Formats: sequence, C-alpha cells, structure tokens
Amino acid sequence: MTGPQAPDEPDVRATFGAIDQPDREVRRAASERQLTLTKPRGSLGRLEDLAVWIAACQGQCPPKPFTRPRVVIFAGDHGIANTGVSAYPPEVTAQMIHNFLAGGAAINILADVAGASVRVVDMSVRGETPASVSRFKVREASGRIDQEDAMSMEETLTAIAAGRAIADEEIDSGADVLIAGDMGIGNTTPATVLIAAVTSTEPVAVVGRGTGIDDNTWMRKATAVRDALRRAKPVVRNPVELLATASGPDLAAMAGFLAQCALRRTPVILDGVVVTAAALIAENLAAGASEWWVAGHRSTEPAHTVALQYLRLDPIVDLGMRLGEGSGATIALPVLSAAVATLANMATFSEAGVSDQ
Amino acid sequence: MTGPQAPDEPDVRATFGAIDQPDREVRRAASERQLTLTKPRGSLGRLEDLAVWIAACQGQCPPKPFTRPRVVIFAGDHGIANTGVSAYPPEVTAQMIHNFLAGGAAINILADVAGASVRVVDMSVRGETPASVSRFKVREASGRIDQEDAMSMEETLTAIAAGRAIADEEIDSGADVLIAGDMGIGNTTPATVLIAAVTSTEPVAVVGRGTGIDDNTWMRKATAVRDALRRAKPVVRNPVELLATASGPDLAAMAGFLAQCALRRTPVILDGVVVTAAALIAENLAAGASEWWVAGHRSTEPAHTVALQYLRLDPIVDLGMRLGEGSGATIALPVLSAAVATLANMATFSEAGVSDQ
Repeated sequence: MTGPQAPDEPDVRATFGAIDQPDREVRRAASERQLTLTKPRGSLGRLEDLAVWIAACQGQCPPKPFTRPRVVIFAGDHGIANTGVSAYPPEVTAQMIHNFLAGGAAINILADVAGASVRVVDMSVRGETPASVSRFKVREASGRIDQEDAMSMEETLTAIAAGRAIADEEIDSGADVLIAGDMGIGNTTPATVLIAAVTSTEPVAVVGRGTGIDDNTWMRKATAVRDALRRAKPVVRNPVELLATASGPDLAAMAGFLAQCALRRTPVILDGVVVTAAALIAENLAAGASEWWVAGHRSTEPAHTVALQYLRLDPIVDLGMRLGEGSGATIALPVLSAAVATLANMATFSEAGVSDQ
Repeated sequence: MTGPQAPDEPDVRATFGAIDQPDREVRRAASERQLTLTKPRGSLGRLEDLAVWIAACQGQCPPKPFTRPRVVIFAGDHGIANTGVSAYPPEVTAQMIHNFLAGGAAINILADVAGASVRVVDMSVRGETPASVSRFKVREASGRIDQEDAMSMEETLTAIAAGRAIADEEIDSGADVLIAGDMGIGNTTPATVLIAAVTSTEPVAVVGRGTGIDDNTWMRKATAVRDALRRAKPVVRNPVELLATASGPDLAAMAGFLAQCALRRTPVILDGVVVTAAALIAENLAAGASEWWVAGHRSTEPAHTVALQYLRLDPIVDLGMRLGEGSGATIALPVLSAAVATLANMATFSEAGVSDQ
C-alpha cells in the first residue's frame, strides 16, 4: 500500500463530494419553537439540542418520531487476534453471529427495549456463516496488521462499497436513524491504530483493555499497536490506503456506511471505539459527514475519548460500557427519541395558557 | 418550631422502624448470573450494577420487567416566591397543573416515551384545582420561609402521611418502579435550604439559577436562602421540625413518599434538586431508605450535586437538565429497563454455545 496510488482510489472521495449540512433554516425554526414550549428556556438541556439537530436532519419542524431505528452490526475477524491481544479466542466472532441471529446477545435485548431492529453483516468472519448475513463478505479475517496489510486495495474498495450499499438498502427500507455496531475478537486493536494514526496520539495513551485483558495481554496489544502504527503512518493522509493497511473489511464497510448515511441525510448514533475509529476515516472520506452523527456514549477505551474529542462529539451517556455491538448507541436511542417527542408534542405557552417569563 | 418538641413527632421515625435492605442473597445470585451471560465480564458497565440492584429490590433473579412505572408529581406553591426568587410568576404552578392534566407538559411526553404514566397531586397550590388532584391538599402555599415557618407541625405530619398514603396507593395498584417529580414556582429555594442545612454547606455554594434567573434574582434568592437557613439550623437534627420550618407540604409529602416506597420495598428513581432535597429528609426519617433509590440524573443546580454526594448516589445521566417534574428521572427509566432486560433475557455462554474466557 505504500507503492504508487491505485488509479481508482481518489474516486471514493470524489463520489461523496461535498456533504450537505443538516438544514440551517429548519434548525433555526426548531430553536425558536423550543422557546415557545411550556418549560423554562433551555431547561431540557442536551435534549433541546438533540431535538433541534434531528429536526434539521429531517428538514422539518416539528420533527417526526423515528419509525424504523436500525442497528447494523459489522462483523469481522482480525489476523492480529492470533497474536493474543484479546481475552477471548477468535472463534467467538462466528459464535456470536449465531447468538445475534438467535436473539440472545446484549444488542438484541437492548434494541428491543429501545424499539430498534438489528441486522448482522459478515464482512470478514472466519468460517462459514448463514447466507442471510454473508452476502457482502470480502475475505476471512484481515491480515496481521503488525506485519502485513489488513487487506488489498481492491478488497478495501469492495468493503467500502458494501458499507455504502448497506446504508442505501437500510435507508431505502425506511430506516430513519441508524446505529453501526461491531463484532470481532481483536477489533479494538485496528481501531486503536486508526485513532492513534489519525489523531497523532502515542500508542500507550490509547491502548485499552478491550474485552477485559490482563497486563501481559495489554503489553502484547500495545506492541501490536505500535508496530501496526509504524506501518500506518506513511499512509495516514489517504483514508483508503489507511484502511487497507491497518483496519479490516468490517471497519472499511463501517466507514463507507457512516459516510453514506451522511450523504443520504440520515442521522447516525455512533457507538464505541471501533465505530468511532471508522467514523474518523469516514469524515476523511466525506468531509462534513460528522454533522450527521451524534456520539451515543463514552466507552471505557481511552482511544474512544481521543476520537470523540477529535471529532468534537460529546457523548449522550457515560455508563462505563465497553461491549460494542452498538450497545452504547442503542442505550442512547431512547434519549434521542424523547428529545424529538418533546419538541414535537409539548404544548406551547399560548396553547396551554401558561404565563411565560 | 423551635419550642418544645411536639408530642407525636417522634412517632414518624418510629413508624418506619429499621428499613430492610434489598435482598442480599438475590444480589449475589444476580451478580453471578451476570458472569454467565454472553458478554465480556463487566462490559455493560453501570447497566450490570443497576440490573443487580433491581433484582435485589424485587427479591428475584432473573428480575422481571417493569409493568407499571409511575411518575407522581407533588405540586405546591411557596410563599418565598412572592419575594421574587424565580423567573416565573407564582400563578404558573396552577397553570401547569392543567397542562399536566391535558398532557402537554414535558413530563407527559417523556413518560409516554419511557412507558410510564403520570399522576399529579396538589399538596399546596394557590387557588382551586380539580378534585382529582386536590384530595391531599394541606394548605395554599407554604409560609415565607425567610421570615416564618413553612407550615405548622400538624400540617407537616399531615403532608408526610399524605405522601405515605400516595405511595401505598400506587404500590397497591401495581407500581413497580416509582418516580417523584416536583412542580412549584420558587421550590428550588426551600430545596436548597434543606440541602444546605443537612449537609452543612454555605448558601453561596449551593444557590443555583432554578428556572433560569438573572443576577439580581439570584442575589434575592441567595439572601432568602441565607435567612431561611438561619431559621432552619436549630432544628436540623429533627427531620419533621426541619420540614415544618423550611420546606412546604409538597416537599414533606415527597419525603413521606420516598421513605414509604423504601418501606414497601419498591425502587425509586430520584429526579433533580427538589426531589433529592426531600430524599435527604426521607433518609433521616427512615434510615436506610436510600438503598431503595437510584439517582436518575444530575441537574445543573449546584445543590443537587451536593445532595447526591451526601447520599452517595451516582446519577445515571448528566444532560444539563433543570426542569423538575420528574423529567430527569424519566429520561433514566429506559436505561433501568434496558439493564433489567439484559439480565433477564440475554443468552448464557452455554445456551448460546459461545466460548468463555
């Protein structure tokens, strides 16, 4: 990937072009409407900003309630997992695909409570998975990124295109707020490399405990991040080359997905460190895309906080979660729904005959 | 209230006796169950603790989903509001009662999104309110607490008993998680006095902006708090006398309500500064009651943070809200519901055939 630039690579950024911002006129109208509702000005705090943002994303005030919140889990295995950077064996990725499909994973339960539905996409899981999830599969596991590229440039472009196609499918099917989730043993290692590379942060400051690793595993992970980062730095200004060098098909697909959601004017709730790493790249693929995203939560992974700061995103909740799967974003979904409902449905001072300030 | 102790006053504390703690055996079983579910240990963060706590409150593991979450708004006017401590005129309290009943207030919308229902109780609103809400009304507005007692000892005991009766009614009707909310122009002033008195905090460190007051109003409020605090300090060790001196029927009823919920082994999500002030008193009426409460949110009122620290409660969300009505607690309800659902419904490692650490 450090050779001459692939001829078709710049096209990815060109196909996104300039991302439109959420509607400024509607944003202003929504902010004005907030002042007319029967509550002290600003007293709903963050909820008021979230509601105004959703109105601007929808291009209408009052905003309408979400009718099809949707979680898309991008699953993939990672070559680096074989070096012992995780508390869990690599076969757990494939096992968890079946758990998602059977409805027994945390995200299934959380999505149900929040009124969302869940889709799983196998981008690069080792072994066979059901045809219903493997349509976009690019390869089985990424390369070992401390020593080799995660995937070829062609695989990278295919994965980005897959993420974009998935966003289109979901939005065309009526999804009006989207959540990307991740599943893949070892995936916080490439995520940390991407974040350290893009934000120019030292590895030791961002390497976290992932699923709950001990000190020896942490040291192996820090070494892997350091070595992968050395390979990634020369290509840091080129998002597609960076993905090929140091991510995996799951992360590349997520990046395409997040950028495409912005292009399609559909709000996204970001999850934890893996999704936010993909978001950093998506913003580089499609400048301005981050205006269509909100940070659902702050995870315990230090790299996540670094990435959120870089994107200037303030998480809705901070509950010490570190599961992935879209779980943190899904916990934040009811807050977003509640925010929208207050702006849409509260009585105004004049309607209710309540004296204003 | 600084005279001889009323003869029937000690009975209030005696009638609560020692509050039982949530079930320790079930707590242990729930913590062990968390380890068997298909997620890295501890990866749901605060959700895991909340689920274990609800299981212990319910006395069963797995816990069952909430069937009747209920918000009870305690409304009252405050004599101190006539001194210009609020951004809003006192008549807004009665106007908002009608807004609650018509379903147009923030809490109506938020409760609907969270699957809760709302009850309004007029404890001491100025003027007439519908019979459906005024059954427990003690008086019209509290006394001006910078100069006189908020109410008589008899009124205080009546209000506490009303709060207890309301808790009983709700729990007997099937409420399995309760939220107390507040409505009353000027009510952050007595709440701040109670918190400053119980926690021995200087007024200037705890006086906040309430519904959004300007600097001159803030100075009037700080003066009112200082003067009321001087009257409250001599009775700070006696929760009933403290309520009579410096609260109001709404706050006294809330204190009775919160203590009675604990006695009845029913979990409560605390709201903002007014409810948490009542909670400080409730803990003094019924030692150990706070084990049955969780802090729903952190409001922007500085006194709220002081009270939460004193009660050693860590808020679930921190969204810059400062509305009252139970709004912050209701935003936290879906987090609690989600926590319960994960503990109850996630697959175990063995059920799902997923490899554990």
